[in-house]
Amino acid sequence: MEFTINQIAAMLNGEVLGDGTIKINTLKKIQEGVPGSLSFLSNPKYESFAYSTKASGLIVNKDFKPSKKIKTTLIKVEDPYLSFTVLLEEYHRLVSFQKTGVEEPSYLGENTKIGNNIYRGAFSYIGNEATIGSNVKIYPNSYIGDGVSIGDNTIIHAGVKVYPGCKIGSQCVLHSGVVIGSDGFGFAPQKDGSYKPIPQLGKVMISDFVHIGANTTIDCATMEGDFTIIGEGVKLDNLIQIAHNVKIGAHTVIAAQTGIAGSTSLGKYCILGGQVGIAGHLEIGDNVGIGAQSGLGKNVEAGTKLFGSPAFDLREYLSSYAVFKKLPDLNNRLKQLEEKILNLPTV
Amino acid sequence: MEFTINQIAAMLNGEVLGDGTIKINTLKKIQEGVPGSLSFLSNPKYESFAYSTKASGLIVNKDFKPSKKIKTTLIKVEDPYLSFTVLLEEYHRLVSFQKTGVEEPSYLGENTKIGNNIYRGAFSYIGNEATIGSNVKIYPNSYIGDGVSIGDNTIIHAGVKVYPGCKIGSQCVLHSGVVIGSDGFGFAPQKDGSYKPIPQLGKVMISDFVHIGANTTIDCATMEGDFTIIGEGVKLDNLIQIAHNVKIGAHTVIAAQTGIAGSTSLGKYCILGGQVGIAGHLEIGDNVGIGAQSGLGKNVEAGTKLFGSPAFDLREYLSSYAVFKKLPDLNNRLKQLEEKILNLPTV
Amino acid sequence: MEFTINQIAAMLNGEVLGDGTIKINTLKKIQEGVPGSLSFLSNPKYESFAYSTKASGLIVNKDFKPSKKIKTTLIKVEDPYLSFTVLLEEYHRLVSFQKTGVEEPSYLGENTKIGNNIYRGAFSYIGNEATIGSNVKIYPNSYIGDGVSIGDNTIIHAGVKVYPGCKIGSQCVLHSGVVIGSDGFGFAPQKDGSYKPIPQLGKVMISDFVHIGANTTIDCATMEGDFTIIGEGVKLDNLIQIAHNVKIGAHTVIAAQTGIAGSTSLGKYCILGGQVGIAGHLEIGDNVGIGAQSGLGKNVEAGTKLFGSPAFDLREYLSSYAVFKKLPDLNNRLKQLEEKILNLPTV
Repeated sequence: MEFTINQIAAMLNGEVLGDGTIKINTLKKIQEGVPGSLSFLSNPKYESFAYSTKASGLIVNKDFKPSKKIKTTLIKVEDPYLSFTVLLEEYHRLVSFQKTGVEEPSYLGENTKIGNNIYRGAFSYIGNEATIGSNVKIYPNSYIGDGVSIGDNTIIHAGVKVYPGCKIGSQCVLHSGVVIGSDGFGFAPQKDGSYKPIPQLGKVMISDFVHIGANTTIDCATMEGDFTIIGEGVKLDNLIQIAHNVKIGAHTVIAAQTGIAGSTSLGKYCILGGQVGIAGHLEIGDNVGIGAQSGLGKNVEAGTKLFGSPAFDLREYLSSYAVFKKLPDLNNRLKQLEEKILNLPTV
Repeated sequence: MEFTINQIAAMLNGEVLGDGTIKINTLKKIQEGVPGSLSFLSNPKYESFAYSTKASGLIVNKDFKPSKKIKTTLIKVEDPYLSFTVLLEEYHRLVSFQKTGVEEPSYLGENTKIGNNIYRGAFSYIGNEATIGSNVKIYPNSYIGDGVSIGDNTIIHAGVKVYPGCKIGSQCVLHSGVVIGSDGFGFAPQKDGSYKPIPQLGKVMISDFVHIGANTTIDCATMEGDFTIIGEGVKLDNLIQIAHNVKIGAHTVIAAQTGIAGSTSLGKYCILGGQVGIAGHLEIGDNVGIGAQSGLGKNVEAGTKLFGSPAFDLREYLSSYAVFKKLPDLNNRLKQLEEKILNLPTV
Repeated sequence: MEFTINQIAAMLNGEVLGDGTIKINTLKKIQEGVPGSLSFLSNPKYESFAYSTKASGLIVNKDFKPSKKIKTTLIKVEDPYLSFTVLLEEYHRLVSFQKTGVEEPSYLGENTKIGNNIYRGAFSYIGNEATIGSNVKIYPNSYIGDGVSIGDNTIIHAGVKVYPGCKIGSQCVLHSGVVIGSDGFGFAPQKDGSYKPIPQLGKVMISDFVHIGANTTIDCATMEGDFTIIGEGVKLDNLIQIAHNVKIGAHTVIAAQTGIAGSTSLGKYCILGGQVGIAGHLEIGDNVGIGAQSGLGKNVEAGTKLFGSPAFDLREYLSSYAVFKKLPDLNNRLKQLEEKILNLPTV
């Protein structure tokens, strides 16, 4: 697979400066460019590499004006990073081994509806009454329970488990070890101090364009007819816990190992750091940002930035923490004052 | 499936107020009641819904006295929440597809003892010398190693892995991705700075009525003949880590993503929040409560409530944290005092 | 399997004091010794057990001088703990059921290279073009993607998933539920607030002698030709998250539930506690120690000990935290001073 810089520029609606007939066969970071590779310059702090890179081609901003002589052929575009991403994606599509067909043994239940051009890996299990869209890839050792529906073009990686009745949208990616629809953690305390499980009869609904990282778990809703809901375009990293009846708004992004307790509702376009913990039954607004390892115990208004455990305003937290670091000094200063005051003449 | 309110009241030993011949076909939350549904009122703060709900029936406390006119038929019981749970459970039993029989291909080792009425899903693996009780459900893609024993009525969801020799009680539920019996994290430091693995020869013992959430991991004990022990009725949420030789007392409840390090012993009836971390070789008493995200490094007496990382008394922590939030102000007040003192006439 | 104390002492280069002809058939902790068992005494605080243990043999330090009469036969060695570990390992090798051969059904792709004496469990999957060394054990329900290579003597436990193209060294142990090579968490924000996935084209490289705990996840690198790298002898506990392009130096040890964000590089011989969070794009030096639940947001020099979230110097953190516990008192003392000052005669 080789393309000339001119061909690539045409794909990107870019302008070529230099020799556009040079052939490109791989994509590299600017500091790791080699002859035949194409790189991009987006962050100005990497500009020095533009003059030293061995890459044959470099995607730059249309406003980029080299301050030194440059050997590499340039492609000027609106947004170099975005353009590079487009190329990566195209490249990914071309080089990825596009699995298709059915490997045996695999298990297919009764009364299923299966779309065109799907892949069913060996030891994959699809239960009864399931509905699988077109171009869906179901990798080996994965489990799709009875009555599950999966939209078009969704990828189910090896070892994913989807409990009966859950709904997965189209264009989703579920990574290995993901569990969808396990029981919510609901137990009724008994008089003798033991607990009785509360039947978890609801399901999980995953909207379109959702990505779910490896070994993340999403519990089902408690009541029949209810859903734990993951909104459109939501991106969940690895090892995240989403409890029963949680609702996550569209295009919210959550980093690894974060946990959200039961019945909490998260807005759209939120960004949560890693290892965040959110208590149950909360309402978190849109565009909320929460720093890594924070712990939330209260409702949060839209647009707020929070940090700490328990979390409060990010700037205020950092101010408090700056003083926390000097607490021994603060304590000493207070002691000195106390001694001074003690030695003052009494009124 | 339909029951009259009179029939349901009889099941619950409840008293009917209103039309008991109305038929019920589903269970709903009070705020989501529809004609034909039954709801419950337990928390007084939801009382207003009792007057507006469209539910046909409402389970209430025997002492409940409506302050306004009420259209819904009431069932008066001792404990509305508990009664509702009983109904949910019965409903669950009726509507759940009760899998039974053997799906092929599945793997059954030699010299196994298998009870009556069990389900073995496709691609499930049962090793040699294993003992499986009656009514056990082993879902697809799960792995039961050699010599494992599982008690009656236990459910092993899809993709659970139980290492050889571990013991699982009866009436347990293990959710997808659970790992029982992986090696404890034990390594002997060598003179050159590297580590040599210490063979992990013990097993895991799970008592009866234990629920284990998705992707939770429980390591085996270190020494031959020893067990990591999960007590009767213990409820573990998702993504929890239980290290080698840990012992958890009966009816203790642990929320998601908590981790307990090696050889720590936890009492009975404890409640641990999510993302708690407990160091190794500790003794935690009965009825201990630990707030979410807390970190424990010391032994804890029975009945204590702790919070923070490192954790101490819950109330004291909250008092300290209240001042922490005002530390910049505290610092300023101290500076002002220092300046004032400096300006005082010297003695 | 029985050995005389003399035979065992010979294996350990130890000196026998007492009856060396006694036969040993099991290994026990000193406080749980039984006739026929061998124990060890390493930690002086357990010395009292040396006089009461029922173990037939006891491994002690060569300098050990009993302060009371002792009935048990002693084996004096340089390092009792290390010697005991050597025995445990030997014992483990002898008693472990050494699986070998192929259980059916299992899946083997095309053009694979498979070494001698390997075990392929039922429902294990090996993709095309994979290379598997000798003595490798691949347990049931595990998935080895296309083009994966695995070195000699490595154990892949049940339900491990290795994405295509990843490289696993020799003498490694991967526990159940481990995921190697899932997509890095990389998404390009779009103008409308949604995110576009950045194709993740790199792989993961696991060096020799690496142990990876149950349900730990390691993401692939972003760029083609790049690797997320786990150095030689690294020990990872359960439920750890290693993001794309992370590099972990040799013989670093990481406790459970810790997460390391993208492109961070960790030195050699580091020790990380459980539930630690490390931000992306950081450089952490060699021999760094990080306390449990700490959060790192900055580069760290070699040899540093850190604690807290955000983390700083361990001793300083503990000093600050000691004052934090007394903050309400501090606040009161400050108030009292303010009142006193207010009551002073003005200058």
